[in-house]
Amino acid sequence: MFEHIRIVLVETSHPGNIGATARAMKTMGLENLTLVAPKQFPDPEATARASRADDILQQAMVCNTLAEAIADCELIIGTSARSRTLTAPLLEPREGAEKIVSERASTTAIVFGPERVGLNNEQLHHCHFHLTIPVNPDYGSLNLASAVQIICYELRLAHLSGQQAITTDSEPLARGNDMDNLYQHMEKVLSEIDFFKPNQSQHTMLQLKRLFNRQRMERREVNILRGILSAVEKLS
Amino acid sequence: MFEHIRIVLVETSHPGNIGATARAMKTMGLENLTLVAPKQFPDPEATARASRADDILQQAMVCNTLAEAIADCELIIGTSARSRTLTAPLLEPREGAEKIVSERASTTAIVFGPERVGLNNEQLHHCHFHLTIPVNPDYGSLNLASAVQIICYELRLAHLSGQQAITTDSEPLARGNDMDNLYQHMEKVLSEIDFFKPNQSQHTMLQLKRLFNRQRMERREVNILRGILSAVEKLS
Repeated sequence: MFEHIRIVLVETSHPGNIGATARAMKTMGLENLTLVAPKQFPDPEATARASRADDILQQAMVCNTLAEAIADCELIIGTSARSRTLTAPLLEPREGAEKIVSERASTTAIVFGPERVGLNNEQLHHCHFHLTIPVNPDYGSLNLASAVQIICYELRLAHLSGQQAITTDSEPLARGNDMDNLYQHMEKVLSEIDFFKPNQSQHTMLQLKRLFNRQRMERREVNILRGILSAVEKLS
Repeated sequence: MFEHIRIVLVETSHPGNIGATARAMKTMGLENLTLVAPKQFPDPEATARASRADDILQQAMVCNTLAEAIADCELIIGTSARSRTLTAPLLEPREGAEKIVSERASTTAIVFGPERVGLNNEQLHHCHFHLTIPVNPDYGSLNLASAVQIICYELRLAHLSGQQAITTDSEPLARGNDMDNLYQHMEKVLSEIDFFKPNQSQHTMLQLKRLFNRQRMERREVNILRGILSAVEKLS
């Protein structure tokens, strides 16, 4: 599904972020991680934060340079917090994910820079597109693994789109006459127990109908309400 | 912009996740964090992982129960990894965010359960909607702060897309404690009139809660139902 997509982390400082990235990737179905000159790797902190996604760490490719990491890639997307001079075309995550999923490129790299400074201009010039996550202009300090999480989430959605992700359950719904019978029963019982204020029965019944019609009631739910009405009838 | 939205973390085990949640929220412009019975808070690990979002930790509200955290909320959304029996309507993050941004509700809670187990059924029954992030079926172990990050990101996008629905109807909506009081009253009266089958009261109450939580009840509708319950009480 995402075999052709590679997440590339450049000069990551904190091994915890590498582990958290592996976990973020795996929750969305991505598996290919490449590390360019990580400060500390492998590292117990990376393994701990990966939770049970440490298989991704074990399979990770480690390179010395970005050029090496993307040498065989046909589509290269660089993430950037800021707009820069001399930029490549700028994408947001959603359109970027749609592009990646829809393009025929056999190998795609999505490149993330070091935690504090991001990709430098020389690194960004390797990229066909720049991708920016829209953040709070007053506080754009997105964690590295969180940025990976958002982009992998968008990749998964782009892949799933068109498919029905979640099936709805199939309880039979109430039909028109089920609802009519419910309302007649309700009006009869409420009248018997003197619930209605004088001349207000129609108005109150309209409010009750509006409440129950606002959703699609299931037949079993109608049956519960009618059971309650029957129990009240026996009292009066 | 997101003043009416509250992120609620229930029984969080790891203070680091609380800090990372604050950071995730702030990058997307959210500020209101409520913690229900956190294992350790405040904690240096929370502050460290919050990076410069520790103002959100300092302002965080700490409660003992979920009911307290959502007592004044008119829209309550519970996140869940699994589909469950007797569920409320299920949303994905994108439609959930669009709903939250477009709805007129003055106060909204988005509720996240404990790291390992998520919200339990009793907690989910407080919620009008359940929200599920589509994950890899073979590895759905999304970190708590990552889940918050994805949902806050979708909220930001929904806000930026300017899809502000115009609603003309301004009836006040029922709050969490209005619904709690309604259900307590209902259970008491149904018990008094011997409506429940033996050992079925909890199951039947869950079905009733599901029916009424599936929509957004107005306060005046709650008042009508409570009026009916009071009228029945006088008979028994």
